[in-house]
Amino acid sequence: MTRGRFVTVEGIEGAGKSTLLQGLSDALRARSIVVCATREPGGTPLAEDIRSLVLARRTEGMPPAAELLLMFAARASHVAQRIEPALARGEWVLCDRFTDASRAYQGGGRGMDPASIESLARVAHPGLAPDLTLLLDLSPEAGLSRARQRGAGGDRFEDEALAFFTRVRAAYLALAAAEPRRFRVLDATLPPAQLLQQAEAQLRELLP
Amino acid sequence: MTRGRFVTVEGIEGAGKSTLLQGLSDALRARSIVVCATREPGGTPLAEDIRSLVLARRTEGMPPAAELLLMFAARASHVAQRIEPALARGEWVLCDRFTDASRAYQGGGRGMDPASIESLARVAHPGLAPDLTLLLDLSPEAGLSRARQRGAGGDRFEDEALAFFTRVRAAYLALAAAEPRRFRVLDATLPPAQLLQQAEAQLRELLP
Repeated sequence: MTRGRFVTVEGIEGAGKSTLLQGLSDALRARSIVVCATREPGGTPLAEDIRSLVLARRTEGMPPAAELLLMFAARASHVAQRIEPALARGEWVLCDRFTDASRAYQGGGRGMDPASIESLARVAHPGLAPDLTLLLDLSPEAGLSRARQRGAGGDRFEDEALAFFTRVRAAYLALAAAEPRRFRVLDATLPPAQLLQQAEAQLRELLP
Repeated sequence: MTRGRFVTVEGIEGAGKSTLLQGLSDALRARSIVVCATREPGGTPLAEDIRSLVLARRTEGMPPAAELLLMFAARASHVAQRIEPALARGEWVLCDRFTDASRAYQGGGRGMDPASIESLARVAHPGLAPDLTLLLDLSPEAGLSRARQRGAGGDRFEDEALAFFTRVRAAYLALAAAEPRRFRVLDATLPPAQLLQQAEAQLRELLP
């Protein structure tokens, strides 16, 4: 049995990750590839419970270290109980956010030390990294405007100011520049059909 | 303002930590010391929510790395939002379990790598360690028998077999042997009044 491929999609709020992931899942399934489409934080019952904790607004706030550790606790469950079993079965895992999101949000956004983040990554998923990461790049102004049009009240992260998302975007772009073999940066302002076409072209190199 | 003292009480289930902590709090308050009595996992609203997650029985189980990360997420909140502010106000913090419990339970009990545990400790509470740690030592047989007499249904940890608690106890004793200045090992089979007397004697050296 060939191990499956692990593809992650990253980007700030409103970048269009969900729409793109739906399109990519459909395209892969049309090629008879079994797809495990999932998201972070979440993807298992425990990780979804942690997601509720970490996204909820709290009057007393949340220390950045607690937020970072919760993200990796959810991720440890997700990797052990869903991602690794799916890859072992030969499925392709398409994941809406992974450890790059912690690097960008808790690292770039909140200023947590990169070495701390890497030490948690080694605890939560030793030896696992995405085969390919699609970064949907967008200005924070455009992203937040799209996210707010969606309505739904948002979460603790959507309460952050523009400067926070500007740091998150810069961190994402720096990650992509540092790992050009793994990352592909796509222009999230493209029409959805064109964005999907470009993303599909990137996935083609992973096909058997 | 003099910084307060940080005292932790450790031991396996049924060692008598709660009773001892109540007695020590009373004794310190009788000396006009302001005491912040707290416990782990827990001690803040967020950490108590994490406690519920981590102690609940789950049909799908919980990966050891997720358990470890959740314990430290709760601890990061506890330290930032309760322990450090109390110490800064000059209060004595008496805490039922702290990072030694992760070393003993997730390290000794579950076999998580000690270096991983120390890397999480550096993220959750950089620079903070107890001034004194009282280890209530007891055989797992005696401890489990006492814990089960308490009834109340127990939690995910109390479902573990004797061999688990044997490893936890051995890890606690090894920690105490490695840090003899910080640790005091007390015989948890002593009558409660005598145990309290011995613990009070150990605390005396921290008094102003």
